[in-house]
Amino acid sequence: MNTSIIRYILGSVLKIEAALMMLPVICSVIYEESEGTAYLIVAFICLLCGVLFTIKKPKENIFYLKEGCITTALSWIFLSFFGAMPFTITGEIPSFLDALFETVSGFTTTGASILSDVEVLSHTSLLWRSFTHWIGGMGVLVFLLAIIPMSGGSNINLMRAESPGPSVGKLVPKMKTTATLLYSIYIFLTASEFLILIFCKMPLFDSLCTAFGTAGTGGFGIKNSSIGDYSVTIQWVVTIFMILFGINFNAYFFMLIRDFKKAFTMEEVRAYLGIIVLAVTVISANIYQSCTDVFDAVTKSAFQVASVMTTTGFSTADFDQWPSFSKTVLVLLMFCGACAGSTGGGIKVSRILVIIKAFLKEAFSYIHPKSVRHLTMDKQPIKHEVLRSINVFFDTYIAIFVVSLLLISIEGHSMQTNLTAVIAAFNNIGPGLEAVGPTQNFAFFDPLSKIVLMFDMLAGRLELFPMILLFHPTIWKEAFDRRYHCKKQ
Amino acid sequence: MNTSIIRYILGSVLKIEAALMMLPVICSVIYEESEGTAYLIVAFICLLCGVLFTIKKPKENIFYLKEGCITTALSWIFLSFFGAMPFTITGEIPSFLDALFETVSGFTTTGASILSDVEVLSHTSLLWRSFTHWIGGMGVLVFLLAIIPMSGGSNINLMRAESPGPSVGKLVPKMKTTATLLYSIYIFLTASEFLILIFCKMPLFDSLCTAFGTAGTGGFGIKNSSIGDYSVTIQWVVTIFMILFGINFNAYFFMLIRDFKKAFTMEEVRAYLGIIVLAVTVISANIYQSCTDVFDAVTKSAFQVASVMTTTGFSTADFDQWPSFSKTVLVLLMFCGACAGSTGGGIKVSRILVIIKAFLKEAFSYIHPKSVRHLTMDKQPIKHEVLRSINVFFDTYIAIFVVSLLLISIEGHSMQTNLTAVIAAFNNIGPGLEAVGPTQNFAFFDPLSKIVLMFDMLAGRLELFPMILLFHPTIWKEAFDRRYHCKKQ
Repeated sequence: MNTSIIRYILGSVLKIEAALMMLPVICSVIYEESEGTAYLIVAFICLLCGVLFTIKKPKENIFYLKEGCITTALSWIFLSFFGAMPFTITGEIPSFLDALFETVSGFTTTGASILSDVEVLSHTSLLWRSFTHWIGGMGVLVFLLAIIPMSGGSNINLMRAESPGPSVGKLVPKMKTTATLLYSIYIFLTASEFLILIFCKMPLFDSLCTAFGTAGTGGFGIKNSSIGDYSVTIQWVVTIFMILFGINFNAYFFMLIRDFKKAFTMEEVRAYLGIIVLAVTVISANIYQSCTDVFDAVTKSAFQVASVMTTTGFSTADFDQWPSFSKTVLVLLMFCGACAGSTGGGIKVSRILVIIKAFLKEAFSYIHPKSVRHLTMDKQPIKHEVLRSINVFFDTYIAIFVVSLLLISIEGHSMQTNLTAVIAAFNNIGPGLEAVGPTQNFAFFDPLSKIVLMFDMLAGRLELFPMILLFHPTIWKEAFDRRYHCKKQ
Repeated sequence: MNTSIIRYILGSVLKIEAALMMLPVICSVIYEESEGTAYLIVAFICLLCGVLFTIKKPKENIFYLKEGCITTALSWIFLSFFGAMPFTITGEIPSFLDALFETVSGFTTTGASILSDVEVLSHTSLLWRSFTHWIGGMGVLVFLLAIIPMSGGSNINLMRAESPGPSVGKLVPKMKTTATLLYSIYIFLTASEFLILIFCKMPLFDSLCTAFGTAGTGGFGIKNSSIGDYSVTIQWVVTIFMILFGINFNAYFFMLIRDFKKAFTMEEVRAYLGIIVLAVTVISANIYQSCTDVFDAVTKSAFQVASVMTTTGFSTADFDQWPSFSKTVLVLLMFCGACAGSTGGGIKVSRILVIIKAFLKEAFSYIHPKSVRHLTMDKQPIKHEVLRSINVFFDTYIAIFVVSLLLISIEGHSMQTNLTAVIAAFNNIGPGLEAVGPTQNFAFFDPLSKIVLMFDMLAGRLELFPMILLFHPTIWKEAFDRRYHCKKQ
């Protein structure tokens, strides 16, 4: 295994994190808060480690999927580890485990919080909390690809490990350009939401944090009521932007190159929007009686559906109190998730589409055994290995899910709490039902459960394999062998 | 589609049902109960319909998997429809929908009941109720294959549609002999349990009903406390026989031909027994505090684990009151189910084994991309199409599960009730948790939910595809076209 390149990339990631921490530092200067010092100290530590890690250039620049996975997993763990430090240093989250949980939840764009009262946090820490969503949304390694030159085509393995979805779409042949394009679209959309929110009379600080949270499909609110106390107009703006950030970014790329036909005929995007419309309709009908009028019902259901389906996790209503049909629909949407190639989590609409197509094909072959039918997506045939990898994804998904659920249930909370806590963490949503419902938080879990949920959040964000590989003994054995020059033949 | 052979087989099935109904008739004579008349009347109707259906010999004897599936699905629906009649005629279950639910639950070996007090039923009806489990356990079409001569190899399509498991193991080249062998093993094991139970001082009638319920892995009890009020010895006998009936019958066949090595090295059977031992250990440890001593804890957990894993559904403890870790383990076992080729339901251990192997292979290929590793089971390579069909099975399983859950949740019961009701029906177990827990029943559901659950029970027992095909419009169109001689080219 090429450990030197892993070390080098980790160092670069830490240097970036040091730079990113300047945002809360600036914020602390504006609001004259003392918490900025903590961020400055941690930024310095990050920089120092980063410089130490990158002093020696890597021996070889080429690396495979294995290295891509390990680098990605370690990067995210390092990011979270250093990112959590300021919370503990400022004393705002005294327990480091809790701070780590909050930060992992931030970077993975989950939005599950251990805080019962977020409003006591300083502006500095609130901004950093929301900013982690924005960083995690598009991914820090994609950012790295956009700014540092890397040789060969092997860096697609880095992007493949970090990007959501069954197949990585290189928008353009050059990786660097693809990464730059993705970040440009991301920044443009975030800025648009920020400006529109200000236009709708949301305070500037709130607009920035909300835009970060929406863009990354994260969901940390800066109010205890999440988005519930803002005006209905603001709620609709956030609803629409949540939906926009859940769309496959390829669609925006096609629009950018003026290929509107391709942009508007993407099967995944159509299915995604179709599911949203359907879910909003049935939930509106189901909750209508407890709302003031049809518009209120649609507003509430649209916000919650968009929030859950894109795995954002903002809320404007306590959906734990809704009838069980609506709750069931929401829980199913939690699994479904947003489009591949968006900032949302979950299983992804495209995977579900492929699975449904494979099923229909099989059912058809029962009736017409001799017919030959090909699976297609956007008129392109679906490759056999894509189908196979999706099936393996599902199996792995279920395996991690089951093991997590078992470990969490040792604590003895209600089954619905355990089940939805794992669903909410694993699919990077945030709130679940019952004790982890939209008005509750994750503080009451004991350390083992918190560690399991952190693993789930990371596994969910990095699409399972990087985190699993990290715990595979072979990987560590190899790294050790190489380090001590006792590599076997 | 070859409709004449379907008609002919349905007729034969009805004739068999008429014969089988003689058992409750004899019972009514012994106990001098008037309910026997109802069974006599229905048996006569069955016989009449059966004779009418079989007067005309089928034009062709050959039929494909499609016909196999349709025949199987229709046979089970007919069986249940006629089997439910006596309950309503005797007035013991006044609503025909409820009687149908009870009978579908019986034939599919689910054991979910709509009765709050089973002890008020006549001996005649109790026996018929338990007997449906026994008939459904091995399957009435397998029985048909054992007794009627059918030409060619095409009748494997009938067995394939009715037998549980991913691949149908013809024990011997001739289908008729395979079916006879299976039924012989089945009868031998049932008779053994019956005799041992009598030896353990269980009343004769109770022994017979319990043996039927265990053999089919059904779970209808004849007491309101299920098996809870019998002696600990009887509970252990039932535990052991539940486990025995959950073993792949191929293992017994290998023992029969004295190939003990093959019998004891079957991977699926080993995994199945391993899971049971593991589950019993962790649950015993988890419930220890609420039990009188270790033996009590092991007795209770072994019975419940065996009952749930084999999808029988008897109970000796109200596991809804257990800690959530134990409940979670039990719910997971509900999905897992017993071995393929046994009378148990669920996903089946062999499918889970194959999925785990496929996952490990994929994880390995991430680390060693150039290695070639083959999937094997019992040292035989797993064919590509078996893996594919297992994956499609999973996808279909999830699809039916999700749709059922949504339909059930319209009623508005708690999510855990809805979830475990679907799990319990679909995996042919019987009791779930909360409102459908071991001490509760399914009577409170409204008609739509009952119909959905009946579909789930049938789909679960027939391994999904036969029931799905039945609702596919093409099938009906074809049958119609053929009937009216307007078949398209």
